[in-house]
Amino acid sequence: MIRVGIAGATGYTGAELIKLVTGHPGAELTAVTSQSYRGRAVQDIFPSMRNVVDLTCEALDVDALSQKIDCVFLALPHKVSMNYAPGFLKNNVKVIDLSADFRFHDATAYESAYQEHVAKDLLEQAVYGLSELYRDEIAATNLVGNPGCYPTSLLLPLLPLVRQKLVQTHGIISDSKSGVSGAGRAPALASHFCEVNESFKPYKVGNHRHVPEMEEVLSLGAREPVTITFVPHLLPLTRGMLSTIYATVTENTTGSMIRKSLLDQYGPDTFVRVLPQGEFPDIRNVRGTNFCDIGFHLDKKSGRIILVSAIDNLLKGAAGQAIQNMNIMFGMAEGMGLKLIQGAL
Amino acid sequence: MIRVGIAGATGYTGAELIKLVTGHPGAELTAVTSQSYRGRAVQDIFPSMRNVVDLTCEALDVDALSQKIDCVFLALPHKVSMNYAPGFLKNNVKVIDLSADFRFHDATAYESAYQEHVAKDLLEQAVYGLSELYRDEIAATNLVGNPGCYPTSLLLPLLPLVRQKLVQTHGIISDSKSGVSGAGRAPALASHFCEVNESFKPYKVGNHRHVPEMEEVLSLGAREPVTITFVPHLLPLTRGMLSTIYATVTENTTGSMIRKSLLDQYGPDTFVRVLPQGEFPDIRNVRGTNFCDIGFHLDKKSGRIILVSAIDNLLKGAAGQAIQNMNIMFGMAEGMGLKLIQGAL
Amino acid sequence: MIRVGIAGATGYTGAELIKLVTGHPGAELTAVTSQSYRGRAVQDIFPSMRNVVDLTCEALDVDALSQKIDCVFLALPHKVSMNYAPGFLKNNVKVIDLSADFRFHDATAYESAYQEHVAKDLLEQAVYGLSELYRDEIAATNLVGNPGCYPTSLLLPLLPLVRQKLVQTHGIISDSKSGVSGAGRAPALASHFCEVNESFKPYKVGNHRHVPEMEEVLSLGAREPVTITFVPHLLPLTRGMLSTIYATVTENTTGSMIRKSLLDQYGPDTFVRVLPQGEFPDIRNVRGTNFCDIGFHLDKKSGRIILVSAIDNLLKGAAGQAIQNMNIMFGMAEGMGLKLIQGAL
Amino acid sequence: MIRVGIAGATGYTGAELIKLVTGHPGAELTAVTSQSYRGRAVQDIFPSMRNVVDLTCEALDVDALSQKIDCVFLALPHKVSMNYAPGFLKNNVKVIDLSADFRFHDATAYESAYQEHVAKDLLEQAVYGLSELYRDEIAATNLVGNPGCYPTSLLLPLLPLVRQKLVQTHGIISDSKSGVSGAGRAPALASHFCEVNESFKPYKVGNHRHVPEMEEVLSLGAREPVTITFVPHLLPLTRGMLSTIYATVTENTTGSMIRKSLLDQYGPDTFVRVLPQGEFPDIRNVRGTNFCDIGFHLDKKSGRIILVSAIDNLLKGAAGQAIQNMNIMFGMAEGMGLKLIQGAL
Repeated sequence: MIRVGIAGATGYTGAELIKLVTGHPGAELTAVTSQSYRGRAVQDIFPSMRNVVDLTCEALDVDALSQKIDCVFLALPHKVSMNYAPGFLKNNVKVIDLSADFRFHDATAYESAYQEHVAKDLLEQAVYGLSELYRDEIAATNLVGNPGCYPTSLLLPLLPLVRQKLVQTHGIISDSKSGVSGAGRAPALASHFCEVNESFKPYKVGNHRHVPEMEEVLSLGAREPVTITFVPHLLPLTRGMLSTIYATVTENTTGSMIRKSLLDQYGPDTFVRVLPQGEFPDIRNVRGTNFCDIGFHLDKKSGRIILVSAIDNLLKGAAGQAIQNMNIMFGMAEGMGLKLIQGAL
Repeated sequence: MIRVGIAGATGYTGAELIKLVTGHPGAELTAVTSQSYRGRAVQDIFPSMRNVVDLTCEALDVDALSQKIDCVFLALPHKVSMNYAPGFLKNNVKVIDLSADFRFHDATAYESAYQEHVAKDLLEQAVYGLSELYRDEIAATNLVGNPGCYPTSLLLPLLPLVRQKLVQTHGIISDSKSGVSGAGRAPALASHFCEVNESFKPYKVGNHRHVPEMEEVLSLGAREPVTITFVPHLLPLTRGMLSTIYATVTENTTGSMIRKSLLDQYGPDTFVRVLPQGEFPDIRNVRGTNFCDIGFHLDKKSGRIILVSAIDNLLKGAAGQAIQNMNIMFGMAEGMGLKLIQGAL
Repeated sequence: MIRVGIAGATGYTGAELIKLVTGHPGAELTAVTSQSYRGRAVQDIFPSMRNVVDLTCEALDVDALSQKIDCVFLALPHKVSMNYAPGFLKNNVKVIDLSADFRFHDATAYESAYQEHVAKDLLEQAVYGLSELYRDEIAATNLVGNPGCYPTSLLLPLLPLVRQKLVQTHGIISDSKSGVSGAGRAPALASHFCEVNESFKPYKVGNHRHVPEMEEVLSLGAREPVTITFVPHLLPLTRGMLSTIYATVTENTTGSMIRKSLLDQYGPDTFVRVLPQGEFPDIRNVRGTNFCDIGFHLDKKSGRIILVSAIDNLLKGAAGQAIQNMNIMFGMAEGMGLKLIQGAL
Repeated sequence: MIRVGIAGATGYTGAELIKLVTGHPGAELTAVTSQSYRGRAVQDIFPSMRNVVDLTCEALDVDALSQKIDCVFLALPHKVSMNYAPGFLKNNVKVIDLSADFRFHDATAYESAYQEHVAKDLLEQAVYGLSELYRDEIAATNLVGNPGCYPTSLLLPLLPLVRQKLVQTHGIISDSKSGVSGAGRAPALASHFCEVNESFKPYKVGNHRHVPEMEEVLSLGAREPVTITFVPHLLPLTRGMLSTIYATVTENTTGSMIRKSLLDQYGPDTFVRVLPQGEFPDIRNVRGTNFCDIGFHLDKKSGRIILVSAIDNLLKGAAGQAIQNMNIMFGMAEGMGLKLIQGAL
C-alpha cells in the first residue's frame, strides 16, 4: 500500500483527492494538511465523509510529513507549491503538484504568467502530467506538474492532431466553459449562488493564465510555435467542463484520418472516449468520472474542424488525473481506484 | 460471483442499478431488459456508460432470463412487477422488487392504494426491505419488497422511536422534499426543466400513495394503529430527499433517550449516520451515497421533537438499498459495492 | 411625484427597491446610499441597470438626504436602522424600515432576539407593515416596520384564521423554505454556489430570530399567547419562499369557513390570491411578482389543516411590500408600480 | 388602444407575449388562440396570471379573430404560420410572425431549410424584424418576420460591422449558448429536468436551421456572400442566450473604429447596450429585459476580434422584439411596454 499525503486538503480539489485516495485499493491516506482548518477533523469540514474518513488536518511540515508518506499531492495555490516540492523530493517522497508551478519547461513562460520561480532547477525533471500523452515520462519521474483543467480539455483532443500535422497551427480557437467549482471554495461575490445561478458569461477575455501552458505544450508537440485564442466562460453548474475547439485541417486531411489519429492515441481501455461519428460530448456523461469524451465534425468545403471535449474539471481536470499519474508513477494499473460510475444523473 | 439481471433497466432507478452492479466486486451483470429500448445497447441509451457496460436490452422473458441469473431486480412500474415475480421465484431466482407490489403485508391496504393484487399468496413470504430494520428477515427470504424513497426517509428515523414508545403515535407530520429524479424518466410537462427550475411546490397534498405503506410499517412497529400527515414537495434538483418530521415525545422521554435509541439501532458501521447534537442533514452530504443522515431537536417545554433525515432518493431510497438487500440475501458483507464516495460536490 | 431615497441600496433588497422605484409612475428615485460602494455609480454595481438608473451612491447623511426626499427606505442591517430612523422622522421624511428594528411593539421581545433598542420611544407609533392586514394603521403613520419574509409568508394565511378563532392557537408548525437571496449578497461559504446548488437543508432549527416577530403578531391577533414551531430551510434557487403550515382547526370549523375567512380578507383586487380548492402554490407562479398565493387542505377526520403560501421573498417578502406600504402611506393606489408580470418562466 | 391577438398563446413565447401585451399601456389583449388548450382559461394554464389575465383560449378562426384585433402575433410552429398570415393581411390585420416563415427574402433558402413555401408572394413585402437595423422598413410594412433568437444574438453585434466592411466576411464563427426555454414547452426527454440540469452540450453541430437565416441577412448587409460556422449549445438555465463570435478584422481596422460603428448604430436610447471597454455581457444582466448587451476584445497582433452578445431569448430574442416591432409598425414609442426591470436577480 502506498502511503499518501495531501497538502491543502480542504479546497474542492483536495476534497476530491481525499475521496479518491480513500476509495483506492492500492493506497492509504495517512496525512492531510490545511492551513485554515489545522487541528480540525476532515469529517467536520466535509460532513459527507463522516464515518468514512478519520483524519485530522495538520500543519504542512515537510520533514514530519515525509516520515509517513510515499507520495504527496500538493493541492496548494499557484506560487506556493514550489516552496514545498524540493523538500519532499529530497526526502524521497514523490510529488504530484496540482498548481501551475511545475507545468512549464520554460521558466520564462511561467514567470511571465505568474511570478519568479524559486525552484527552477527542478523544471527539467518535472513532467507534464497529461497522462495519456506523457505516460512513459511520468513513469520515470518523481515530480509531476498536473495539468490545468482547461489545458486538459484542450490538449487531449488537439495534441495528437497537432503532432501529426493534421490541423494547422495558426488560427486555433478554444471556446471553453467551466463549472463553478473551478473557481475554488473561497467565498467571493463572483461565486455567490445568486450571482451565478441562471447566469452565464465569459471572463478574462484575451487574458487567461492557462494560455501559455497550452501554447507551450502545443508548440512542443507541433515542433513550431502555436498560438491560440482562448475564451473561458462560467457555467451555472457545479462540476464539468466542455471545450468547443475550432481549427482548420491541413491539406488532404480527411475525417477518417482525424478519427484514426484519435483512436490510435486513445484505445478503448483508456479514459479518453472518442465518440462515434455524429455524437458529441455532454458534461452529464463525464460528471463524476475520470473520462474525457471527444467528438468532432469536419466541414469538408471550408476545411473547418469542430472538436468538442468534455471532462469533469475536478476529476480528469484535476484530482482524477493526479491519481492516474500516481498509479503510473508507482507502477500500478493506470485506472486503479478510478472506476467511477457516477456519470449521467 | 452472483449473476444479476435487471428488469426495466432504462429508467433512473434501473440506470443506478446497472452502475452499482457493474461496480460490485461480488456480482456480475448478465442481463438487462427494457420494453421501450429492446435490442439497443445500454451505452447508446446512457452514453455515460460507454466502455463500461457492454450489454444489450432484451425482452422480459422470465424463463430465458432465469437461465443466466441468480437474482433479479424488478425496476418495473407498480402493478407490473407482481406479474413477473412468481415466475422468477419458481425458477429459484431471488427477487428484489422496487415497485410497491410486495411492500404490504395487508393486501387490502395495497389494493386500496393501487389495484387488485394478482400474487397475494406471496405477500406472506415477502419481506419489507428496510435493510437496517429487517435485516434478519431479509437474510431469510427470496422475495424483498424494496421500500419507497419517502417511506425510507421517514421510517429510518421514526421506526426505532415508535417501537420503543418514545414518540406518540398520533399527530406525526412528515414534510418531505424530493428531487426530480423521483418522478421518473418519462417526459412530462411537470418534469420539464423550465417548469421545475427555480420552482418549488407541494404535490398530492392529502393524497399520496406512500402513506399506507408508511402507516402499515409504523403500526406494526408500534403494535397499534399509527396515522400520519404527509406532504411531499418537489425540489429543483436532480437527486436527493429530505424529510422534516414533527412528532410529540411520550412522557419523560428525553433527548438522550432519543439519541440512545437511534445509536443503538444504527452503529457506526451502518449506512445510517446519527449526527452530533446541533447538526442537521443536508442533501449534499448524502448525494451519490447510500447514507441516510439523521439529526433531531427536542423542545423540552412543548415536548415537540423535530427529526430531519436526508437520503439520495435513487440510492438509499431505491437502488442502493436494493443492492444492500441483495448483499444481505446472499450472505455478503452488507456494504459491499456501496462504498460510494460522491457526497458533497 | 414622491421623492424617494434608499439607504443601503446595494444589497439584494436594495437593488429590488431601486428597480421598483425606477419603474414606479408616482415616485422618483433621488438618492441612494451605500457604505461599501460610496461614490460608485449604481450601473457599475448592477450592470443590469445600465442606461436605466443614473445615480451614484452617497454616504448616509440624514440631514443632507432629507433635503431631497419625502420617503426613505432603510434597507440596512438589523440594529443599524434604529440609529437613523429618528433623524429622518424629525425632518418629516416618512420611513419604511426593512430591518427588524421597528417590527415589535414590545421592546423586550426585540431585545431578547437582537440587542438593546436605542429608539424605544418610536415603537408605539411604528406600524407593522403587513399591508393587507394593517392597511388603515399604515395609512396613518410615518414609520413602518416592514415585515420579514418568513413572517409575511406565515401571517398572510394564518392571521385571519387566528383572529377569527378558526384554528387552535397551540401546536402550529411552519415548515418554511427560502431561496438563497434571503441570505443577502455578502459572500459566505454558506451561499457559495457549489455549497447550495443541488442541496437542501434546514437551518437554525429551534432557534430563529423571526419566531418572536411571528408570535407577537399572532398573539395580538388571537388576543392570547400563541407559540409556534418554525423550521426554515434553504432552497437551491435564487428567489422565492414557500411555507407549509400545519395547524388544527377549532371545533365545528369547516373548509368553507376557512375559505370564506380568507376570501373576505383578500379580495380579487389584492396581492393575495386564494387558490381554488385542490390547487396549491408553486414558487414559480409568484416569482418576480408581488403576489402571495395561498392554498389549503383540511382533513376532516383529524381536524388537521395544511395551509401553503408562496411569495417572492424579495418582493412581497421585502421590497414589493415596502413599495405597497409607501403607496398606502402616500395615499396612492395600493398596487401602483407593482403590476409585475414576471411570474412563471 | 391597439387591439391585439395572439395565435398559439400557450407556448413559452406565447406566454411572454400575453404578459407583455397585458402590461402595455398602448395595447389591449382581446384574443388568444390555442389548439391544445382551446376553451380553457389562460389563468388555468398559467396560474401566475391569475387575477391578471382574464381570457379564454379560442380556436384560430382568421375571420372571427380579425373582427376584434388590429394586430396579430403568430406564435405558431414553423410551416404553420404561412397558412394564416395571408388571411389576416387580407382583413387588414397587421401580422408579426414569430416563426421562420417570413424571415427570408429568398424562398429557395427557406425551402432548403424547411419545406415548400405556400405564401411566396408575401415574401417581398415581409420585413425582417431586427428592430434596430430595419426600423424604417418595419414602420412601412404590415408583415414582419420576427428574427430567431440565435440570429438576433449574432446579427446585432455583427451586422453593423459587416455592412461597414470592418470584419472579413469569411471565417466567422459563432459559438452560441441558449437556455432551455428556447426548445419550447412540449415535453421531451431532451428537456427533462434531470437530463439538462448540471449538464451542458452542443447540439445540431454543423447543421442548424438558423444558419441560412443568418447568412442571408449578413450577405445582404455585406453585399457579398457570407458563410458562417455556427455551433449552438444548451445551457442549464431557463432563459437567456449568449453568443461568442470570432472574426477577423479587415486591414487597418482598429478597436476604436469597431466601437464607433456600434455606438453609431446603437444610441443610449435603444435596447442595445455597447459595454465599456474591458466589460463583457452576462446573461444575468439582460434576463427578463429587452436589452442586448455587447462587448468585444480585439487582439491587434492577430487581427482576431471576439464579440460577445447576450439577450433574453424569450424577450429580445422573441416576444420582446415582437412588441418592439408592433410599436414601430403602429407609430408608438419604440420602447413602450418594454421598460422591464428584471435584470440581475
